[in-house]
Amino acid sequence: MSFAHAHLLGIEQLNPFDITTLLDLAEVYVDLNRRDIKHSDALTGLTQINMFFENSTRTQASFELAGKRLGADVMNMAMQASSIKKGETLIDTAMTLNAMHPDLLVVRHPHSGAVDLLAQKVNCAVLNAGDGKHEHPTQALLDALTIRRAKGGRLQRLNIAICGDIAHSRVARSNILLLGKMENRIRLIGPPTLLPAPFKEFGVEVYDDMRDGLKDVDVVMMLRLQKERMDGGFIPSEREYYHRYGLDAEKLAYAKPDAIVMHPGPMNRGVEIDGEIADDINRSVIQEQVEMGVAVRMAAMDLLARNLRARRTDAGVMA
Amino acid sequence: MSFAHAHLLGIEQLNPFDITTLLDLAEVYVDLNRRDIKHSDALTGLTQINMFFENSTRTQASFELAGKRLGADVMNMAMQASSIKKGETLIDTAMTLNAMHPDLLVVRHPHSGAVDLLAQKVNCAVLNAGDGKHEHPTQALLDALTIRRAKGGRLQRLNIAICGDIAHSRVARSNILLLGKMENRIRLIGPPTLLPAPFKEFGVEVYDDMRDGLKDVDVVMMLRLQKERMDGGFIPSEREYYHRYGLDAEKLAYAKPDAIVMHPGPMNRGVEIDGEIADDINRSVIQEQVEMGVAVRMAAMDLLARNLRARRTDAGVMA
Amino acid sequence: MSFAHAHLLGIEQLNPFDITTLLDLAEVYVDLNRRDIKHSDALTGLTQINMFFENSTRTQASFELAGKRLGADVMNMAMQASSIKKGETLIDTAMTLNAMHPDLLVVRHPHSGAVDLLAQKVNCAVLNAGDGKHEHPTQALLDALTIRRAKGGRLQRLNIAICGDIAHSRVARSNILLLGKMENRIRLIGPPTLLPAPFKEFGVEVYDDMRDGLKDVDVVMMLRLQKERMDGGFIPSEREYYHRYGLDAEKLAYAKPDAIVMHPGPMNRGVEIDGEIADDINRSVIQEQVEMGVAVRMAAMDLLARNLRARRTDAGVMA
Repeated sequence: MSFAHAHLLGIEQLNPFDITTLLDLAEVYVDLNRRDIKHSDALTGLTQINMFFENSTRTQASFELAGKRLGADVMNMAMQASSIKKGETLIDTAMTLNAMHPDLLVVRHPHSGAVDLLAQKVNCAVLNAGDGKHEHPTQALLDALTIRRAKGGRLQRLNIAICGDIAHSRVARSNILLLGKMENRIRLIGPPTLLPAPFKEFGVEVYDDMRDGLKDVDVVMMLRLQKERMDGGFIPSEREYYHRYGLDAEKLAYAKPDAIVMHPGPMNRGVEIDGEIADDINRSVIQEQVEMGVAVRMAAMDLLARNLRARRTDAGVMA
Repeated sequence: MSFAHAHLLGIEQLNPFDITTLLDLAEVYVDLNRRDIKHSDALTGLTQINMFFENSTRTQASFELAGKRLGADVMNMAMQASSIKKGETLIDTAMTLNAMHPDLLVVRHPHSGAVDLLAQKVNCAVLNAGDGKHEHPTQALLDALTIRRAKGGRLQRLNIAICGDIAHSRVARSNILLLGKMENRIRLIGPPTLLPAPFKEFGVEVYDDMRDGLKDVDVVMMLRLQKERMDGGFIPSEREYYHRYGLDAEKLAYAKPDAIVMHPGPMNRGVEIDGEIADDINRSVIQEQVEMGVAVRMAAMDLLARNLRARRTDAGVMA
Repeated sequence: MSFAHAHLLGIEQLNPFDITTLLDLAEVYVDLNRRDIKHSDALTGLTQINMFFENSTRTQASFELAGKRLGADVMNMAMQASSIKKGETLIDTAMTLNAMHPDLLVVRHPHSGAVDLLAQKVNCAVLNAGDGKHEHPTQALLDALTIRRAKGGRLQRLNIAICGDIAHSRVARSNILLLGKMENRIRLIGPPTLLPAPFKEFGVEVYDDMRDGLKDVDVVMMLRLQKERMDGGFIPSEREYYHRYGLDAEKLAYAKPDAIVMHPGPMNRGVEIDGEIADDINRSVIQEQVEMGVAVRMAAMDLLARNLRARRTDAGVMA
């Protein structure tokens, strides 16, 4: 099997075979999660620790359920209320947890690169659950699985529009990397203030008009508008934003008739997306994204645990 | 077995056979919980999510232990700290969790009717853990089991006094419904400001004097005084309230010699109840109410999970 | 086996055979935790409740992992956000949890003696996870195991220095008790304001100069500086404190060449300890202390659960 990684830190480190391997295994877990008895022994006897330095109810819940369904002992650490306040450094906190012998460490952190740094210090498998503006690899993988299922198994040569606050979005960044590696044509649409230059280097097309940008796309991927951006002068008002960049039926009509609509959640209805479109089961795959999230995280943890066991066996550690 | 419900939303939907079925199964779990090995496989492989939009340490703990002892994968969501803050609607939050394929969703919410609404949107079994001033069905069921055990298996034709802040109490409301369905004689005792007219329609007697109201009752059910009511002008002071409506030995002497004393907790000692009476093991069944709570919740989740499995099998879903 | 206790409330109640029994069993769990499959059935079917009235991420995490790896159903109660706010007494809270039939109750509380009081009221095994300035027995036991392993199995007749804020430290108090019972020579080093008279009764030597105090010691045990002490006038400033009492290479040179350096965490680097010494794997055993913590807690819960089962069998309760 092609997935020779010790950690899942970003899409940047994955090649197309890695991605396909992970999505194929996730399909198995999609089936399992739809059953009555949603249990596997893949992680039995292993310890998973979720370290969230930023609140994220839905991502943490998705990882927690994924681990529990695979039989792991799962522990959540609310890091805000913790030793961080007592002046302990990130590395000391990580080393402390590492000394408790976790097998899988799921980490979200407000600073780009913090999760990579941490992975160098511990001897278990680390999964990046979002670090600053850098990467959110499991979000890109669940988006990819959702697209592949909606498009009859195809994840290549699609026209995909990513719309909104690209500049501050690790979701956008990981998606651009993944969809680029799979040879799709990516368009970024948003106000110029939220579309900084560096993204142009990825070989993407950039639009500031939704109607132009959505023309004939197969996939419309909306991003969450971080409302705190408004105070920063990036965008004028919610109403103005919705008028120009919010996805409504009129703008969506420019996309292909079978184009799907995606959103990573939680949604601001009436700001970046019209509520009726979000709920249209013929277009919106937003609920399916959440479902794929649990399956993709199960697949990622299963693959990393296999590699961890293999490394330990090579090192002569008893299993 | 007589329990054909997909959800447990309120006592209103249950008939006397449903109630008896549930209490009889709860007795089995009372025995299990008193053993050393407190485990059953009734919910193995199923996922239970506790969504508490209001804090409630004891009710959430009771549901959490109930699920874990039945072998479920249990996940707690502290909804205050969650996406709610990010402007997501209740329904979007529920749909997101639903997409993760829970089997049992335990919900507490400050608005009456919110849990019913949510149950219409998801495809798992929903248990109401308290919604606004509406219903708190598992509390009424645990109270009923406590009474039945204390009265030698009898839950009919008893004289039962419910005392205190009836108007704002979902506990009172669910108890009035349940005890009425089982053909008991219910008296409500409290200050007129806390005893609004609608309750009279349930065929209950209303008193504003404790001594009159407690005369010859079999069961004295005290309610928690919500201290925030005092600021609202409903009652004058804690001291005055205790003098008139607090349960002490002198007032309790008007009840039958074998009358039991109940309280849903947490207690305000010296406000609605005298500490010595609360601790009198010959009269008070307050600790037994807590014990019955776990058992009743195990029974409710077990019955709902059986119905859920049956519906899925009928629908051709693999088990 | 020599461990005839119903609870683990403090080191004060243990004799040297108890301590050795517990540390020997902990060694078995050190091995288990280093394996791939970190699971035993010692607590299967039992319920462990962690009641933390003070925040402590690392101690709670250590107890939680210990219980989960032994197969217990583990429930965390964040007591700050709970009924305490609603005016319920500690004893009522404990009695409520007791009625849910826990087998193991792990309690941290800001008041000295609170955990002992609670243990008298419940009928399960209670573990003290720190009460006020009184005791923190599992910390002393994990420190003892760390020392014994570093010193080739020896835990007697060592020269051990405990340095810093002794007066306010339950860690210091439990360690002084344990190391004294095992016949070690204990020195306390710190500013006189943080070294009150009563400790002199334990037969320890007292120093206010680090160089004098560290001379030829086998073990240097640093304590965390509670920064709130500074406002109280106990110590002048972080800088001044580090200059006089912070452990650096120059001061450590007075200890034996093979002296080990300990710290209960979380560390204030550059206040009570130099960062380089904390990270020096030839001297510092700080990470190993954390590792031993999980193993010691597994051993303590295993022993208490065996005694609990034995008592219940004697009492004729079905197992």
